[in-house]
Amino acid sequence: MTVTTAAPPPRADHGDPQIAERAATAIRMLAADAVEKAKSGHPGAPLGMADIAVALWGVNGGGVVHHNPANPSWPDRDRVVLSNGHASMLLYALLHLTGYDLSAADLAAFRQFGSRTPGHPEVDQTPGVETTTGPLGQGLANGVGFALAEKILAETFNRPDHAIVDHHTWVLLGDGCLMEGISHEVASLAGRLGLGKLICLYDDNGISIDGAVEGWFSDDTPARFRAYGWQVIEGVDGHEISAVSLALTEAKADALRPTLICCRTVIGQGAPTKAGGHDVHGAPLGAAEIAAMRESLNWPYAPFEVPEDIRAACDARPAGAALEAAWRARFAAYQSAYPELAAEFERRLASTFPADFAQTEEALFADLIAAGTVASRKASQLAIRRLAPALPELLGASADLTGSNLTDWPGAARINDGPAGRYLSAGVREFGMAAVLNGMALHGGFIPFGGTFLVFSDYSRNAIRLAALMRRRVIHILTHDSIGLGEDGPTHQPVEHAASLRLIPNLAVWRPGDAFETAVAWSAALRRADGPSALLLSRQNLPAQSFDGDRRAAASRGGYTLSARPQPRAIILASGSELGLATAAQALLDGEGIAVNVVSVPCLELFLSQPKDWIDAVLPPDLPRLAVEAAHPDPWWKVVGLEGAVIGMDRFGESAPAPELFAHFGFTPAAVAARLRDLLAK
Amino acid sequence: MTVTTAAPPPRADHGDPQIAERAATAIRMLAADAVEKAKSGHPGAPLGMADIAVALWGVNGGGVVHHNPANPSWPDRDRVVLSNGHASMLLYALLHLTGYDLSAADLAAFRQFGSRTPGHPEVDQTPGVETTTGPLGQGLANGVGFALAEKILAETFNRPDHAIVDHHTWVLLGDGCLMEGISHEVASLAGRLGLGKLICLYDDNGISIDGAVEGWFSDDTPARFRAYGWQVIEGVDGHEISAVSLALTEAKADALRPTLICCRTVIGQGAPTKAGGHDVHGAPLGAAEIAAMRESLNWPYAPFEVPEDIRAACDARPAGAALEAAWRARFAAYQSAYPELAAEFERRLASTFPADFAQTEEALFADLIAAGTVASRKASQLAIRRLAPALPELLGASADLTGSNLTDWPGAARINDGPAGRYLSAGVREFGMAAVLNGMALHGGFIPFGGTFLVFSDYSRNAIRLAALMRRRVIHILTHDSIGLGEDGPTHQPVEHAASLRLIPNLAVWRPGDAFETAVAWSAALRRADGPSALLLSRQNLPAQSFDGDRRAAASRGGYTLSARPQPRAIILASGSELGLATAAQALLDGEGIAVNVVSVPCLELFLSQPKDWIDAVLPPDLPRLAVEAAHPDPWWKVVGLEGAVIGMDRFGESAPAPELFAHFGFTPAAVAARLRDLLAK
Repeated sequence: MTVTTAAPPPRADHGDPQIAERAATAIRMLAADAVEKAKSGHPGAPLGMADIAVALWGVNGGGVVHHNPANPSWPDRDRVVLSNGHASMLLYALLHLTGYDLSAADLAAFRQFGSRTPGHPEVDQTPGVETTTGPLGQGLANGVGFALAEKILAETFNRPDHAIVDHHTWVLLGDGCLMEGISHEVASLAGRLGLGKLICLYDDNGISIDGAVEGWFSDDTPARFRAYGWQVIEGVDGHEISAVSLALTEAKADALRPTLICCRTVIGQGAPTKAGGHDVHGAPLGAAEIAAMRESLNWPYAPFEVPEDIRAACDARPAGAALEAAWRARFAAYQSAYPELAAEFERRLASTFPADFAQTEEALFADLIAAGTVASRKASQLAIRRLAPALPELLGASADLTGSNLTDWPGAARINDGPAGRYLSAGVREFGMAAVLNGMALHGGFIPFGGTFLVFSDYSRNAIRLAALMRRRVIHILTHDSIGLGEDGPTHQPVEHAASLRLIPNLAVWRPGDAFETAVAWSAALRRADGPSALLLSRQNLPAQSFDGDRRAAASRGGYTLSARPQPRAIILASGSELGLATAAQALLDGEGIAVNVVSVPCLELFLSQPKDWIDAVLPPDLPRLAVEAAHPDPWWKVVGLEGAVIGMDRFGESAPAPELFAHFGFTPAAVAARLRDLLAK
Repeated sequence: MTVTTAAPPPRADHGDPQIAERAATAIRMLAADAVEKAKSGHPGAPLGMADIAVALWGVNGGGVVHHNPANPSWPDRDRVVLSNGHASMLLYALLHLTGYDLSAADLAAFRQFGSRTPGHPEVDQTPGVETTTGPLGQGLANGVGFALAEKILAETFNRPDHAIVDHHTWVLLGDGCLMEGISHEVASLAGRLGLGKLICLYDDNGISIDGAVEGWFSDDTPARFRAYGWQVIEGVDGHEISAVSLALTEAKADALRPTLICCRTVIGQGAPTKAGGHDVHGAPLGAAEIAAMRESLNWPYAPFEVPEDIRAACDARPAGAALEAAWRARFAAYQSAYPELAAEFERRLASTFPADFAQTEEALFADLIAAGTVASRKASQLAIRRLAPALPELLGASADLTGSNLTDWPGAARINDGPAGRYLSAGVREFGMAAVLNGMALHGGFIPFGGTFLVFSDYSRNAIRLAALMRRRVIHILTHDSIGLGEDGPTHQPVEHAASLRLIPNLAVWRPGDAFETAVAWSAALRRADGPSALLLSRQNLPAQSFDGDRRAAASRGGYTLSARPQPRAIILASGSELGLATAAQALLDGEGIAVNVVSVPCLELFLSQPKDWIDAVLPPDLPRLAVEAAHPDPWWKVVGLEGAVIGMDRFGESAPAPELFAHFGFTPAAVAARLRDLLAK
């Protein structure tokens, strides 16, 4: 470790090591008692990281984390991420001790139904929890997103002598996070982007669930992170609060590189007989061990009881109030100097649209009506071109498929070239990109979107799921959405992916049938502030459909009658590239005197959530139904019933030009018409 | 680069650099012409790697790859993996030139329907293609699996002076593979396991689709791989065949560490104006560029024409025949010395079961009948305990959840401790593990299985998909398969995963309802040689169900009437942990005089593939149907129809003890009975 300053560094304990150590003991006992009471949980990591936590949050106003427990949504607070989310009791204990609205009773309800202390940290469930963690590695990725958001907002809004955006992101992580592939993706990106305000503390306890990690994880982790361009501070004794404090100070001193602080720790430190073993990871310590622990740590207090002197020392509200007050004073000065910027900053953080957003949407619809026959990926790009100048919070990305996903726009400076950019070439890192965008959405100030091929949503799937669970607005642009991808073949052709994404609760999946519906999808995704959306877009051109009436209102229901016939005998439902196929089949059937309605379903789950009268009007109960989608048929059976039929794909595709594939797999007007005739003949 | 031997290394060109360079030109022109004719494809990487390829395969019997084009399934051949699968024409050109059964006409049909030269390499479609690649990073992971398989088989079968298993695995990869997170997972593992016969060639051309990679990928890759414990040979000129040859020789000399050879190349090398730019990556060069290329490379031949001297120099059949003959002589000697071992080796490679396998299965069923009420994860472990001693090809793994997945067995030595092991603690690397197991299944000699929590199949999903596409037998043990996981909460509770896995074509998804059905699932997964299976298993105990008749035959159909009543008025279908719930509801309804049958559906897709008479007998068309599964309801609508009902979960779970969650979400006998009554009242 190189010491970068001659001045004595600030000490987290403010010169009172005894109270700091007792605070660590309080954390340990709260964690152990909560897990014991819940009869399940993970004591190992909270016990092992208690000293690190005290160094980070401090006592008596020490510590490095800038936060105000009285206001967990203060915009310029530091963000703290517990990437090893199973250590949730560490975080809950700290939030409790530092003065967040989290009582001893809340801690005692750990892992119980409806409590504010779920098994893994969940954002919006607990004041002070910044993101939902547990699936390993993603907390680190969220942290990269937080730090990137801070950096871009600072570049955008700060002015000389007015640093209104100036906070750090602290990530606690363990071996598991570092083994996961996503840690590579996002650490590499963070190093490249020079996220100097990202500081990660590695709980290097040498133990994972299967035992001593040396059997399966022998990386030279410091060397690995140096290879990414990080500052690495290694060999820190994670049970020496002052040593961790010193490392934290050194970490902050490097503004150009993210920092990894490698803390050697003992898992379950403080548990008299179980510390250091893997059994302490994920099971209660047991009454005897806890009693012995109370004894050996000199902790005569009842479970969830904390003596007043420790409470007072840990209470971060006074210091937090001062920090926030100072920031508010700075912000007031900024407001005076830059009233428009200040208003824009507040708008961005409040997540409201610009006053002229409705006009922007009108222009967007006009653009896409004028677009005519284009691929829906191209229609999406036209939407982005209209939206990006009007919505500065819109931030785009692609996992190295910009020219294919069509996610960029003219004049979109790349973040890769500096924080004045708004477009990220994320590299071939689908999962990392999605989880970084989650972090940016959580931070606030951004509506992030990212592109890849639909088939590679497999790689990013769990990050999409977490956005849905966290109810955060991230927009996924998933192009090349069927065998229409063509020659690249079955490894690149999605089959099950539309169906599979629709299964994720709270994810809106749009598969627009033409440019107009792409406008509807973009508009809905932007307005859906409480959850992610996925736009499944075609590589190939889609004919523009015509409609009599207010198509925008109709399509915004997720499903509507695009083309009606008098006395229809059946319904053809379709989405995306099969919408044009359905109308072509309808025309064929018209020629045979068979009247059928075509129902467009750009967002199936949204359609099925409409009032019954809308659904019944679109799908009169007595009419047989045929659904057509070049994808797995499963989602459609709940719409067509056993009496209906689905033309879909339940096998892998092939490498060939797209038109041949559509013909081979039965996606032709003639085949659809034939199937409809069969249905009527039943 | 350190030279480890004083002797002059073998040269790929056998002293004739001119013919070697012309061979590289042949590869370039074949690739460029094939992409041009297909009007789509990726010329950049084949052109950039042509010289590396010549160094690897050699001319005039040089090169380092031990293969015999006349017999692509020779057991001791080297395995070559093209991890950057979009460079498929590089591989096809080589297979063609070295004498595999791949004609010029096959090359001319590149990316056309039904051809043997699909857009990305697909195993079993093209002789000499060892694995299906395209989704980046997974080829490298397959390569790790190949090398691990070789190492374990060598340890198992080789005897002093009898090296019957002794081959290398060569992986070609690009920037994209190295950006993907899975590269971290498997390179870390390969370093730890000391896979000295794994040699990777990195096509370091500095370009990916979005442009120059330095904007998003500035890793010190050599330092990164050294941190994993690899030998790294850097700074090799990838267009200097002799330099690459020297590096290959050095790579082979290190038997203890995997090697990464970093080759500096120019993407599209040989294309006069387009080389070095990202436009050459994924689009045809165009007629003018190709004409200029013919000129500048002095290649006067027609597309797909190769002059005889180059053909003769590249033909690897004579050398290959000699290599294979030498191995066959070694194997004959081995057979004489160790006839039983030799027979066992042949059995393993032929993928046939031991002669006593039927008895093993009987014992397995007896064990699981005796097991009574256990969690299905525990039943699975009992199955493994019975199977592992009897099936030496069975190889287990877990992504750091061994004690939770219950994937190990007594006496299972860990591969982490040496290649005599049969159980891999894979670390927290779900995706890497799954793709490594794919490689082992592809290699032959193993039936690999790996465990993680069901929810984390999200991480490994695309590798499961590729096993299904490749039709390879890999068994996924996915435990904690519902909200029955309990307190860990919604990040760890699968909701959409059973439905989502069932969507993957050619994946058998089993969710057994008790110990007996777990035996059926294990038996079916083992006997399913042409595809992967996923076993979705409970954390919590499941009551053993009773059955009158041949339950094994019935359950092997995927769905069957577990419990019939005279004149039933309805059917309750269930899987997994909800099977006991269904029978409990049946008993409640019995008490009310409402007779219902309970249908167990441990494998829904298998059930639906049965003959119509079986399905109609189990589900008489006139009886209303209620499906119960603590998972997303979507898969069941195609069974119950719009007149039926599903009790499922289409929202995220909660953190709480499992019994409370089941009650809260409506999974109680009373709730099921009530829903059934509603159904009858409709």
